[in-house]
Amino acid sequence: MNEVELKFHLIGRFKLSKNGAEAKDGIAGVIDDANKNILKKGAPKGRGAEIVSWGVDDTIMVEIRSDRYVRAHDALLRLRKPLAGALGKYRIGIRGIEVEKFTITIPTEKPLKKLKIPFVRSMQYKSGNILLELDITGPQIEGRVPDRIIALIVDKIKSQKYGKKEHWELLWASKEKTPKFTGDPTQELIKRGWIKHGSCRGQWIFGSQITKVFRTFEQIVEEEILKPLGYHEMIFPKVVAWDVWRRSGHAKAIYPEMYYVCPPKTRDEAYWEDVIDHYKVTLEVPLDMIKEKIDKPIGGLCYAQCPPAWGFLEGETLPDDILPICVFDGSGTSHRYESGGIRGIERMDEFHRIELLWIGTPEQIAEHSKKLQKRYKHIFEDVLDLQWRMAWVTPWFMAQEGLGGLPEKKEVGTIDYEAFMPYSKKWMEFQNLSNNGDKYPAGFNVKLQSGKELWSGCSGIGLERWAAAFFAQKGVDPNNWPNKFRKMVGDLPDVFKFL
Amino acid sequence: MNEVELKFHLIGRFKLSKNGAEAKDGIAGVIDDANKNILKKGAPKGRGAEIVSWGVDDTIMVEIRSDRYVRAHDALLRLRKPLAGALGKYRIGIRGIEVEKFTITIPTEKPLKKLKIPFVRSMQYKSGNILLELDITGPQIEGRVPDRIIALIVDKIKSQKYGKKEHWELLWASKEKTPKFTGDPTQELIKRGWIKHGSCRGQWIFGSQITKVFRTFEQIVEEEILKPLGYHEMIFPKVVAWDVWRRSGHAKAIYPEMYYVCPPKTRDEAYWEDVIDHYKVTLEVPLDMIKEKIDKPIGGLCYAQCPPAWGFLEGETLPDDILPICVFDGSGTSHRYESGGIRGIERMDEFHRIELLWIGTPEQIAEHSKKLQKRYKHIFEDVLDLQWRMAWVTPWFMAQEGLGGLPEKKEVGTIDYEAFMPYSKKWMEFQNLSNNGDKYPAGFNVKLQSGKELWSGCSGIGLERWAAAFFAQKGVDPNNWPNKFRKMVGDLPDVFKFL
Repeated sequence: MNEVELKFHLIGRFKLSKNGAEAKDGIAGVIDDANKNILKKGAPKGRGAEIVSWGVDDTIMVEIRSDRYVRAHDALLRLRKPLAGALGKYRIGIRGIEVEKFTITIPTEKPLKKLKIPFVRSMQYKSGNILLELDITGPQIEGRVPDRIIALIVDKIKSQKYGKKEHWELLWASKEKTPKFTGDPTQELIKRGWIKHGSCRGQWIFGSQITKVFRTFEQIVEEEILKPLGYHEMIFPKVVAWDVWRRSGHAKAIYPEMYYVCPPKTRDEAYWEDVIDHYKVTLEVPLDMIKEKIDKPIGGLCYAQCPPAWGFLEGETLPDDILPICVFDGSGTSHRYESGGIRGIERMDEFHRIELLWIGTPEQIAEHSKKLQKRYKHIFEDVLDLQWRMAWVTPWFMAQEGLGGLPEKKEVGTIDYEAFMPYSKKWMEFQNLSNNGDKYPAGFNVKLQSGKELWSGCSGIGLERWAAAFFAQKGVDPNNWPNKFRKMVGDLPDVFKFL
Repeated sequence: MNEVELKFHLIGRFKLSKNGAEAKDGIAGVIDDANKNILKKGAPKGRGAEIVSWGVDDTIMVEIRSDRYVRAHDALLRLRKPLAGALGKYRIGIRGIEVEKFTITIPTEKPLKKLKIPFVRSMQYKSGNILLELDITGPQIEGRVPDRIIALIVDKIKSQKYGKKEHWELLWASKEKTPKFTGDPTQELIKRGWIKHGSCRGQWIFGSQITKVFRTFEQIVEEEILKPLGYHEMIFPKVVAWDVWRRSGHAKAIYPEMYYVCPPKTRDEAYWEDVIDHYKVTLEVPLDMIKEKIDKPIGGLCYAQCPPAWGFLEGETLPDDILPICVFDGSGTSHRYESGGIRGIERMDEFHRIELLWIGTPEQIAEHSKKLQKRYKHIFEDVLDLQWRMAWVTPWFMAQEGLGGLPEKKEVGTIDYEAFMPYSKKWMEFQNLSNNGDKYPAGFNVKLQSGKELWSGCSGIGLERWAAAFFAQKGVDPNNWPNKFRKMVGDLPDVFKFL
């Protein structure tokens, strides 16, 4: 983004408490100095912003042209204090900032499709440039709205030019392993009566056999990871309010994939009597009536699992000596509105995950990630005996901006764990591990007593994904399972029989 | 309801494939016989339905008056077959049923408030009666709409007369016990940093200490109940579709208390681009735009926990010898839109529960309930040492009809477990145990091979409620906890410290 040659043209006005003509000389001095110093500060020689015309009556009008080094709207803000100084001796006050005209020119090879963006009056493509006409006033400039509009447009131009780059770089791969089973694991599970479809899209009811396998996975995680690495259990909330997703960054991208949660507008039974009567008479749930009686969504169902945990730390300062903190949650379901097509237990709308979260200094985060990688390797190699691999991929918080790219040092970013699915000859992601840098502590305003940087990492262990990988390679018959694992599972309960 | 003296007046028409005049004599014979036999069958002597006038042209018109023994709309249906017989020899067919006028008279002391009920054209109060004018046709009669309308009105009259009777009858009470603590447990937990408010209403984030206490409760349940009584774990879905609540009966009442779940109308990213752009520019989630882009609710969040499990059995026939079946679920959160006021961990919108479900013959269900009661008594007396009591209360499926009353034999119905809260001097329900009779097997069409009756029972163990009861009586300091329990909990982890 640094490389894009932006041009700005802004006509703004400082509203005055009374006519400012008597202060004209002082203002002229400020403008003169600004053009030499204030509006050049931080820019390379010959660059920055320039006041190309100005005037004073009930307002001070300034016309500013600039490049990307001192953006015109920043230039406008830089003028406020020195102008106030020059006006002060005449007891004239600045009452606010208005923007009469604000055009931003952004180079692009191709026009963008038509967009409706807040505070953008018009958007035109003209000989290699997008001309943005903004419709803003002082508070938006102070709230950095223009910068966010520019970032948005620049992202769209890049994503149009380069596509949604997804980085993928192999880090390690296990040996090839001869599968004990080559069928579709979901079909096999259905056939054996271990799972049945739930009443919702992408949802299953898990019988006692597969639940016991899940619990064995959890036991492995407990013995091989949670206990040796010093994890403590917490219970993270499972309905996630907008404020959490604002702070975690998910509010930038989550909408097409989330399940929305709406409360009733009131708990008053009389308010709901007509819905209840309608149901009792027709035996049909009156969805149109209900839609009018529920409130706007308060947020959505758990999507990434760790964001709502940060409410526990929000606004706090931590003593350095309690780091690293390692906590986990396995108290409920995660939900994603997945794309169509039946994908069985590999891709579900409702699934179960153990979420690991660790918090510490950058060094501690990196070190913990290495320890975890070692533990996972041991589990996938020695306990589950999978054919698997790990790859360095675009982290979610970069992917959601529509940008590819990847931190070079392999420090902040994500490792995907993939298992080979013999029945489809494809690789399936069954686990991830992320170093999120300072993203969460910054978003939730968590600080360290020493003032040092605070980072965090997280890793989601999806029980259905582990099961899908394992059953796809080993099948559902315990006789084909690795010895150690089969012993851990023990006898499979056989609770239901159907005629 | 049997005692209410209903009166019916119906004018209906059987549409014919051609003019029926030539069949007049045959029709007269059917009407005559109907008034003597068909419309009296099942009614006490002198009661039932009566055709008071009739005629034939392109339709056969019948005017029927009746009492509650053979309701006029049932009488109409009873005529169809014999009339078709009489018409058949003239090759005249019946093409459908129309209802010209249908008035039902229901006695009541007081008028009801104005209601909008489907298929009710008008509803008037006249000298001790409600006069219902229905607007229906053949399919509604065949679909039993009039009966459901009558049941609804009769319920409303009863509930207006008697109020919402909640039965409560003490079954057993422990000794009075001297509390070790008399404060508000929630305030104490907040003070000690064991819990913090989540981002949603009635939601908490649970730190590592209280999570360990919850896990100890679960361990007690496992050792004292799940293992000795032969329970197997399953995973029940946590988003519940309307169809489940139709079958479980919750669709009759749940609306003011449920959290609704809405999916996006589409997962297409282009469809959501304006929402995302709006957020990225303003940093505000545009709820009005979102409300237009989400679909009608598909159902709601887990409310009663066991209903979605029945999908596993739906439509199946079970061999008798696998009974009783005992399964449990603890895989996620339950949610209720609770009434206002801060009630801390005693009354939450998001909570955690172990749900027990047992299925068997009526005798097995009753026997299992007794075993469970014994186990619970042991836990509350000998392990947690609570001051508690149990009461026989209105079961939920009767309460939701707005009716009190209670099965006399204490067979089908609900036991509430209540703990004394020293800080408020009130009793709090912290657990229940229900014998649901055939409600679920009937609703989900589950049958037994032998044809014998299939019943079920369920019991919800609320972890927050157990904690609220325990902390309210014993406090948060482990030194005041019963020895056995304190040992089971072990050391409390101290993960976070805040400055």
